Amino acid sequence: MTPKKILVAQGGGPTAVINQSLAGVVLEARKFANVSRVYGAHHGVRGIVNEDLLDLTQETTHNLEMVANTPSSALGSTRDKPDAKYCHEIFKVLQAHEIGAFFYVGGNDSSDTVRIVSEEAAKANYPLRCIHIPKTIDNDLVGNDHTPGFPSAARFVAQAFTGANLDNAALPGVYVGVVMGRHAGFLTAASALARKYPDDGPHLIYLPERAFDTDKFLADVKEVYGKYGRCVVAASEGIHDSAGAPILSKLSGELEKDAHGNVQLSGTGALADLLCEEIKNKLGIKRVRGDTFGYLQRSFAGCVSDVDQREAREVGGKAVQYAMSGVGNGSVAIKRVGEYAVDYPLITLETVAGKTRVMEDVFINAAANDVTPAFFDYLRPLLGSDLPSVARLRGAVLPKAK
Amino acid sequence: MTPKKILVAQGGGPTAVINQSLAGVVLEARKFANVSRVYGAHHGVRGIVNEDLLDLTQETTHNLEMVANTPSSALGSTRDKPDAKYCHEIFKVLQAHEIGAFFYVGGNDSSDTVRIVSEEAAKANYPLRCIHIPKTIDNDLVGNDHTPGFPSAARFVAQAFTGANLDNAALPGVYVGVVMGRHAGFLTAASALARKYPDDGPHLIYLPERAFDTDKFLADVKEVYGKYGRCVVAASEGIHDSAGAPILSKLSGELEKDAHGNVQLSGTGALADLLCEEIKNKLGIKRVRGDTFGYLQRSFAGCVSDVDQREAREVGGKAVQYAMSGVGNGSVAIKRVGEYAVDYPLITLETVAGKTRVMEDVFINAAANDVTPAFFDYLRPLLGSDLPSVARLRGAVLPKAK
Repeated sequence: MTPKKILVAQGGGPTAVINQSLAGVVLEARKFANVSRVYGAHHGVRGIVNEDLLDLTQETTHNLEMVANTPSSALGSTRDKPDAKYCHEIFKVLQAHEIGAFFYVGGNDSSDTVRIVSEEAAKANYPLRCIHIPKTIDNDLVGNDHTPGFPSAARFVAQAFTGANLDNAALPGVYVGVVMGRHAGFLTAASALARKYPDDGPHLIYLPERAFDTDKFLADVKEVYGKYGRCVVAASEGIHDSAGAPILSKLSGELEKDAHGNVQLSGTGALADLLCEEIKNKLGIKRVRGDTFGYLQRSFAGCVSDVDQREAREVGGKAVQYAMSGVGNGSVAIKRVGEYAVDYPLITLETVAGKTRVMEDVFINAAANDVTPAFFDYLRPLLGSDLPSVARLRGAVLPKAK
Repeated sequence: MTPKKILVAQGGGPTAVINQSLAGVVLEARKFANVSRVYGAHHGVRGIVNEDLLDLTQETTHNLEMVANTPSSALGSTRDKPDAKYCHEIFKVLQAHEIGAFFYVGGNDSSDTVRIVSEEAAKANYPLRCIHIPKTIDNDLVGNDHTPGFPSAARFVAQAFTGANLDNAALPGVYVGVVMGRHAGFLTAASALARKYPDDGPHLIYLPERAFDTDKFLADVKEVYGKYGRCVVAASEGIHDSAGAPILSKLSGELEKDAHGNVQLSGTGALADLLCEEIKNKLGIKRVRGDTFGYLQRSFAGCVSDVDQREAREVGGKAVQYAMSGVGNGSVAIKRVGEYAVDYPLITLETVAGKTRVMEDVFINAAANDVTPAFFDYLRPLLGSDLPSVARLRGAVLPKAK
């Protein structure tokens, strides 16, 4: 293989470990004598078009390790979706810098970007190796057991609900926590891992994989509240009615969309407030509180799964190995091969690109308000080491003396 | 001193370290041969009235240590404010169980409860040692350098803004994070500790100690956005106009109040949404996102300052020592005596009870949109060890080649 320059960029929403993949690419590339330079593009494909490039070749290993442990996309990100014209602008810049390989760390929209760039490069006879490196807190890439970024976000959600459940037990009432996830409920479902004792919350979990019925929801809350004198609810921001209309849109009217056609659901507390109002008004419960976890869950500094860190590093390294071994374009995937062990096969871009995995039926209970034991088995090994452990007082209740 | 039974309870909002103080009381009491039993009341003073008591005497040290590391009030909490009649109900129960000392872990409302109980006990000639143990994430107890619970919540806020700033840098726009704090801005101000590089956010910090002017706010955001192409804002939930009306009430109309007359500001995302709408509509900035940190910041499992843990343990232990040494009723306070070292004097209940400390002028900048260097000096030692560190890529920008 001839000496080549390679370029790496990051697309879509940031995660806690997306820079591990960046470090994986840069550090692995140094092992190949025929890689002469490693460039980074600021803000994804837009940075390529704008020729806003960075030379990462002489980045120190220490600083790369520091950046790897820093949440959010160190190169910056974008939600741009390229068309043929956009791709030709990309190729002009890549050609001017003699770049032979393009690595893009991102989710399903970014994998679609890699597919488009790959196809347009072939049409234009531009020799470009295109590798997609997986990343998304939504865990919604098809062809993957799970995606880097999801385990750390899931850990944040589990830790948040561990605390929220205890807070709700101390000052009883109803608590509603709204979690990110447009179509896939994996992250909301992760709240279940907060449970330790049988009466721990979240007591109810609502996922976008099932239609949300407000009357059913209120009946569920009423039942739990009657049983425990309190209730903790986890709801996905993407919950929708049986016609597919987001519950949020009932309140907020027209919603913002990005270039990929995704409706904007995060960055507002409206859904939690709407659900709380329903509970207050219809069930007459006084203490009802709602939180929307928002951007904290994907970029919080200091809440990360070590399993996620290692895997995010490895998919970056594997991407370079696949590119250099000449097996063709594709997407690095995570395949579970043991409990717990994974492999990183290269799958075709078409398998992943622009498609959305949702939670498998086996993970959702029949009443559509909780997860199944199978989901615990699936998620537990991903959350990593040293999860905070909580305990209760065991002291005997004093007999009445008054 | 005659053998006695003692009782401990927890009041007000939970914190990440309030159980350290509980463990401090129970473990210290074991060192005194004349303490025969240690009881806990469920849900604060209400648990006493309801005779809902727990025997903590035989709680294992291991379990106490586990509980100490568990966020939120392990005994449960209350916002009840006792009057004379309520106190007499308390005394009936205390007398029936021969309880001679009452320890109450709580904030300014709970210290007021201790003052009332102490005064009513004197009037009723009921011999009761009453000690208030400080706790509040709001850091608003007078007579204290700071309060247990605040450093851990401040750490959460700093870590959250560290991530939010990086997220906002990756996908630029305006980000508004709303932080707890009704009258005191300490917790919102803690967001400033998220900064590392000169252009890091939060770029603007709005505190309840200064009147909030929407036009001034919009001008501030516009200026920062013009300079950096992005803007991160930290706003206290308690921001109010020059007449003292909460900005939140302009949107939400009548607000819920508790027994102490406190307006309910948390548990809704409305303020963040209101500020975001103003920015979108008046400044024409498209990507504007708001998060309300809500209950996560006071009970998140796994984000705690080790300094806070140790101090919360010590105020519990000191409370027992003061009670057994017979120096009278009072409130254990934290006094800074070195950089960094503290003492724990016992101050009068009247000094603390029902009063609210707000941020000193020396901590707030003249433009009322940031903190001063003095605030960094004040807060840094409290945040504890091993704060997450972030880094940037240093790679040189590539010269244009196209």
